Amino acid sequence: MMKATIERATLLKGLSHVQSVVERRNTIPILSNVLLEATEGSLKLMATDLDLQINESVPAAVDQPGSTTVSAHTLFDIARKLPEGAQVQLTVAEGRMTIVAGRARFSLGTLPRDDFPVIAEGELPTQFELPAETLKQIIDKTRFAISTEETRYYLNGIFLHVAADGTGGQAVLKAAATDGHRLARVTVAQPEGAAGMPDVIVPRKCVGELRKLLDEVDGSVGVSLSGTKIRFDLGQAILTSKLIDGTFPDYSRVIPTGNDKILKLDPSGFKEGVDRVATIATEKTRAVKMALDRDKVTLSVTSPENGTAAEEVPGDYAATPFEIGFNSRYLLDILNQIDGDLVEVHLADASAPTLIRENDKSPALYVLMPMRV
Amino acid sequence: MMKATIERATLLKGLSHVQSVVERRNTIPILSNVLLEATEGSLKLMATDLDLQINESVPAAVDQPGSTTVSAHTLFDIARKLPEGAQVQLTVAEGRMTIVAGRARFSLGTLPRDDFPVIAEGELPTQFELPAETLKQIIDKTRFAISTEETRYYLNGIFLHVAADGTGGQAVLKAAATDGHRLARVTVAQPEGAAGMPDVIVPRKCVGELRKLLDEVDGSVGVSLSGTKIRFDLGQAILTSKLIDGTFPDYSRVIPTGNDKILKLDPSGFKEGVDRVATIATEKTRAVKMALDRDKVTLSVTSPENGTAAEEVPGDYAATPFEIGFNSRYLLDILNQIDGDLVEVHLADASAPTLIRENDKSPALYVLMPMRV
Repeated sequence: MMKATIERATLLKGLSHVQSVVERRNTIPILSNVLLEATEGSLKLMATDLDLQINESVPAAVDQPGSTTVSAHTLFDIARKLPEGAQVQLTVAEGRMTIVAGRARFSLGTLPRDDFPVIAEGELPTQFELPAETLKQIIDKTRFAISTEETRYYLNGIFLHVAADGTGGQAVLKAAATDGHRLARVTVAQPEGAAGMPDVIVPRKCVGELRKLLDEVDGSVGVSLSGTKIRFDLGQAILTSKLIDGTFPDYSRVIPTGNDKILKLDPSGFKEGVDRVATIATEKTRAVKMALDRDKVTLSVTSPENGTAAEEVPGDYAATPFEIGFNSRYLLDILNQIDGDLVEVHLADASAPTLIRENDKSPALYVLMPMRV
Repeated sequence: MMKATIERATLLKGLSHVQSVVERRNTIPILSNVLLEATEGSLKLMATDLDLQINESVPAAVDQPGSTTVSAHTLFDIARKLPEGAQVQLTVAEGRMTIVAGRARFSLGTLPRDDFPVIAEGELPTQFELPAETLKQIIDKTRFAISTEETRYYLNGIFLHVAADGTGGQAVLKAAATDGHRLARVTVAQPEGAAGMPDVIVPRKCVGELRKLLDEVDGSVGVSLSGTKIRFDLGQAILTSKLIDGTFPDYSRVIPTGNDKILKLDPSGFKEGVDRVATIATEKTRAVKMALDRDKVTLSVTSPENGTAAEEVPGDYAATPFEIGFNSRYLLDILNQIDGDLVEVHLADASAPTLIRENDKSPALYVLMPMRV
């Protein structure tokens, strides 16, 4: 038994968060469901895919406390289509949930609350706070580099670790992602409480759901973690995820420190030029050639199928002229993350990893492997 | 040889029209190309898929008249990425076309202009004008009912024919589309010059391209046709299409005239109710049941998988109570076309074609076959 009344907009918002954790296809039926738990003054929603769990609490008028589980996507679709401003009455009796709003009435099958799997958090000894803005920045500037190769599961997330190697040896928190072709790293001041934390790899799906929720959060996010689990407390919603059980490679070795050919240019003109010449590139080879010469770069693409394209972009460059090639899409991904009006490209030679950053003060740094062109 | 200069926005708009006629995959290479023909003061663009041809003319500064063909999608993608306000220089020499704009330069392979296939229009003896608004209405209110079954090729378009059976026996032009489950028909005043025209079936792709172009047209559209070709003159652009070589069924026989159970209701409340209860419907059966009773309809859906949904909608109904089922998606397609604040549903029994229309004055009329529920 359970009986609660909730504003349609409130229910919809809560369900929109939890339903996106629920996979569309499930071999275990209860994983398609959302757990609803009505207690005094609030309705708790919970969904899981066994690796990632979301808990959310929304205000509701509860006549009879109780709990059940029903299809998350069906309930979400119903809430979406109910008229704006409607009061939604949820009643559970005899194994079915009735949803009444205005003249509409729905009846959904339920599965027992006790069968709903819960991720056991265990101890989460490391606890710190991060401003929502910092967490957004960490995610936005690294997630595009996360590997999608399932066999390299240890690269399928963002690596978080603490270190004491900031400028002047300060304690920092670093976030890194790589797919072997490019690397993105963001360094931020170490939050209080993070010292001594284990190195962790946060899975891509958790990163994606977290990022969506962050759009609705001001202020700070509570982060708690152990070597196997991480928990993000976003106020209304709590996200708990298993961590990737693997070893992230020692990425610091691929960050070049001695690249002495420095190109400085306007990132937006550079980006537009790369995007334009890449029109000619084919799906197979997305290579763009950069010919560096005194204070200019000539971008070019040659495709046996489509033709050729070239564009000259002005920039500060005083080192030996040479040519190097990059995957144009990877280069654009990085340039899309540069906010300022100057970008530095640190090159060594046509086969060496190249470093890209806004300047030596910027928290983000990118490494891109060249391609033969 | 050819040399012309054209405003980027002008080139882009012209190409955006012609490129959508060009299929993404072509076994005949030249069908991927757009024909460019520079004559004094203008650049003519032309594309074809052998059934549908578009001709467009845009202003250009022509230094040297000439013509060639190049990849339509590549040229369109280039034009899209060129900077706003750029002047684009097109030069053809030695079998290649060079495109220069600002600091960017592209070179594309060409194919000979003389190999480009042109749809021979032949005689188009029937010629009339239709206001763009009327043509839009004809398309919008019928195209959703066009069959997508390729084996029933004679239903893969909009049927146009003239008749003298308007209210009071006026001469009319009728447009109809059906997929065997639903039928949509629009009747408009017969334009001058249409009398005696052959019955024609305009293919779906032509309808789609025409509809897109109509968004940019005010005033009238010139229509010319024979029994095998149709031509739409939209001012800047001209669309020429082969007609479907088949016989459209005598659809008038499926339009019920004696349905005496009349339901009148608010189309938006009806639509929202159908949409809501259909949340429960599965991909396989999209059936919604309508139980008609004195001045109300109860909409309901039962899905063994998902559960049940019901909603009562008020309406004027005074005939015998009974139940009838419809494909909810088909019903929604029709209700989406009803603009007014009242819709009439003319029913006979649970297995008979049902007529839906705004009222007896409305140019559009719909017939929907019921489903067993």
